[in-house]
Amino acid sequence: MSLYEEIETLCGNAKAASSALALATTEQKNSLLLKIAELLAASSDEIIEANGKDLQNARDAGISSAMIDRLTLSETRIKGICASLEELTRLDDPIGKGENYLRPSGIEISHIRVPLGVIAIIYEARPNVTVDSAALCLKTGNAVVLRGGKEAINSNTALVKIMKRALEDCGFDPHSVGLVESVERESAQILMNMRGYVDVLIPRGGKGLIKSVTENATVPVIETGAGNCHLYVDESADVDMAIKIAINAKCSRPSVCNAIETMLVHVSIAPRFLIEFAKAAKEYDLEIRGCAKTTVIIPDAKPASEEDFATEYNDYILAVKVVNSCSEAIDHINKYSTAHSEAIVTSSEESAQKFLNEVNSAAVYVNASTRFTDGGEFGFGAEIGISTQKLHVRGPMGLSALTTEKYLVRGNGNIR
Amino acid sequence: MSLYEEIETLCGNAKAASSALALATTEQKNSLLLKIAELLAASSDEIIEANGKDLQNARDAGISSAMIDRLTLSETRIKGICASLEELTRLDDPIGKGENYLRPSGIEISHIRVPLGVIAIIYEARPNVTVDSAALCLKTGNAVVLRGGKEAINSNTALVKIMKRALEDCGFDPHSVGLVESVERESAQILMNMRGYVDVLIPRGGKGLIKSVTENATVPVIETGAGNCHLYVDESADVDMAIKIAINAKCSRPSVCNAIETMLVHVSIAPRFLIEFAKAAKEYDLEIRGCAKTTVIIPDAKPASEEDFATEYNDYILAVKVVNSCSEAIDHINKYSTAHSEAIVTSSEESAQKFLNEVNSAAVYVNASTRFTDGGEFGFGAEIGISTQKLHVRGPMGLSALTTEKYLVRGNGNIR
Repeated sequence: MSLYEEIETLCGNAKAASSALALATTEQKNSLLLKIAELLAASSDEIIEANGKDLQNARDAGISSAMIDRLTLSETRIKGICASLEELTRLDDPIGKGENYLRPSGIEISHIRVPLGVIAIIYEARPNVTVDSAALCLKTGNAVVLRGGKEAINSNTALVKIMKRALEDCGFDPHSVGLVESVERESAQILMNMRGYVDVLIPRGGKGLIKSVTENATVPVIETGAGNCHLYVDESADVDMAIKIAINAKCSRPSVCNAIETMLVHVSIAPRFLIEFAKAAKEYDLEIRGCAKTTVIIPDAKPASEEDFATEYNDYILAVKVVNSCSEAIDHINKYSTAHSEAIVTSSEESAQKFLNEVNSAAVYVNASTRFTDGGEFGFGAEIGISTQKLHVRGPMGLSALTTEKYLVRGNGNIR
Repeated sequence: MSLYEEIETLCGNAKAASSALALATTEQKNSLLLKIAELLAASSDEIIEANGKDLQNARDAGISSAMIDRLTLSETRIKGICASLEELTRLDDPIGKGENYLRPSGIEISHIRVPLGVIAIIYEARPNVTVDSAALCLKTGNAVVLRGGKEAINSNTALVKIMKRALEDCGFDPHSVGLVESVERESAQILMNMRGYVDVLIPRGGKGLIKSVTENATVPVIETGAGNCHLYVDESADVDMAIKIAINAKCSRPSVCNAIETMLVHVSIAPRFLIEFAKAAKEYDLEIRGCAKTTVIIPDAKPASEEDFATEYNDYILAVKVVNSCSEAIDHINKYSTAHSEAIVTSSEESAQKFLNEVNSAAVYVNASTRFTDGGEFGFGAEIGISTQKLHVRGPMGLSALTTEKYLVRGNGNIR
């Protein structure tokens, strides 16, 4: 069987499995999630052993310690995955929810949420994504086809095997969760083009992955996770508040997509604010790359290039630019941002309102950190990612993002 | 300027115009729509003259009379367009609607609907689509880039010129409505790939156009209009009701996407039903292409090929297949349908429920005609098309389909 046929079979099997999943009750789906948690907990030795192979390969390949950390599945992390599964059972099931109405023609319309069908997920190193993503799909009655990174293939294979066992134990088709076993580049390309099988593809990963997907996929895509986020410190900002928010937004967890990458500072507050900020940032050994004005105020700042403003560092590096007005800040953001999350610190209601209205991003903040852009913080519970596109869903993706709509119409011989 | 640069400029100008449109009040947008109607009515001579050139070219090219009819803009049709514009002002504006909530962290979230930004529409011969589509986009605060068929280029140019005049008169940027003037195939290809400018592309046209868009577009797409719709006549159907619905669904307007193309008939009712149906269909000179069993019951039926079941005729032609069960009908539908609209005629609640649950289409009917799948009939007012994809919107697309969401978050120095 060719690689294409292999993936087509996997997707075809997932599609066949999706019909029964779509009709499963909330109770059946929750029991399945608990069974997965139970089997994962009982199989932690098996998982850790498989993960050990991935870790050995990673070490042999000289992969960075940050990457090794993301790849690692410890007893504690497996317990964390199980706790997330239990938490997921407590979230409302959107499937079947909707409204009924009668039209003047006499037809009765029931407009409800239904599963998308088959969701494909292409992701990178973290093996916990394997269970998290599959669980969100199953909770919403969707089959899922997973294609993880080659670094985690042994871990992913073990995790999917356990999920398939749980599916069988609960009377579901084990093909409801499929794993693309090939980690060749070509396998991702094939999966992106499984029209007729894959209803939606969600890439979870870096810029390169998202770019490859948007350029090559012929199945519908939800772009996620690219976060070139900004903080603008307005002329009227409270300096202490601005420092607190800037440090939190940049340094509390620089690797995540809702951390800021560029800070824009109004020229009239720049001298006062930037000196204080640079002091506070010393603790994190933050590298500042600034415009000409910034480097005058902060002498250890490196000069920023045009490229810097377009970069998502995901690291202890921050680009800084001094601007002459709120409008200039907004223009800069709308030019360079990935439309994820942006914040202003200001005491002016006029600037706040202008920023909220004119910044064209999924989440726009006044006097709060961009780090709040997250399914849990927004009140959706678990999330499968942060959408940076405008179609279907924008911002943190709760369970309803994994559903579509259907019109059920009843008549009594009605014609038009 | 190359064709690429020309289209990039057009889209860039539309993007720049979209910021002001997004902030326009409902009153301002409604005044604009009324101004467009006023100027169109006042310019009907100018429009009819431009349309005359298109009609002459079409006649010279020997184009079919059905096509000529679709291309024609008469005084009456222009009045119809103006009436639609007035009706559109009476629909609720979804922009800015949403909900506010406070999170335990202290942040206040306002989750609202905002315009998509720039909507591109690629369509075929009918020039009325030019104004209808642009008006729906403007009502929802979106800029629009139109790329119509070459047959209507003179009409479209005249209509867009008038809309631009109305935009200027109302203080909006005339680039809010753009027309791709080149009708070369390449211009559509370029428009499909205007990432960074075009937020959503909606193709309105036949199978060939939709296929070209899904294969080539790198901007997000809403697929519309492909309608290989089915009617299944169940074993327990009321024969009179089934005939009434079948004739309505096939013959009331065969050119539209919600007309049926294949009828499936349960074997035990087939002899009785099909003989009666064939009689009723005589009035419409309907061509029946049937499976082997059908041709035994209806001797003038032509034999149907596999290809027939996958074809959207949009004409007085119907494929007919006799099936052994409701399950077989559902499997056939889920295999061949474009997931637009399907109906069952039945007296059995069990069959009805099974059909509603298992048929994987946007609109599923029990004892009613598929012809009801329409924005107006569903209560949304004007529509920009019927989505046959699962992402973003499925079924008739009301005004809210032309919006996305945005989170406005206010804090008082909140960090995470």
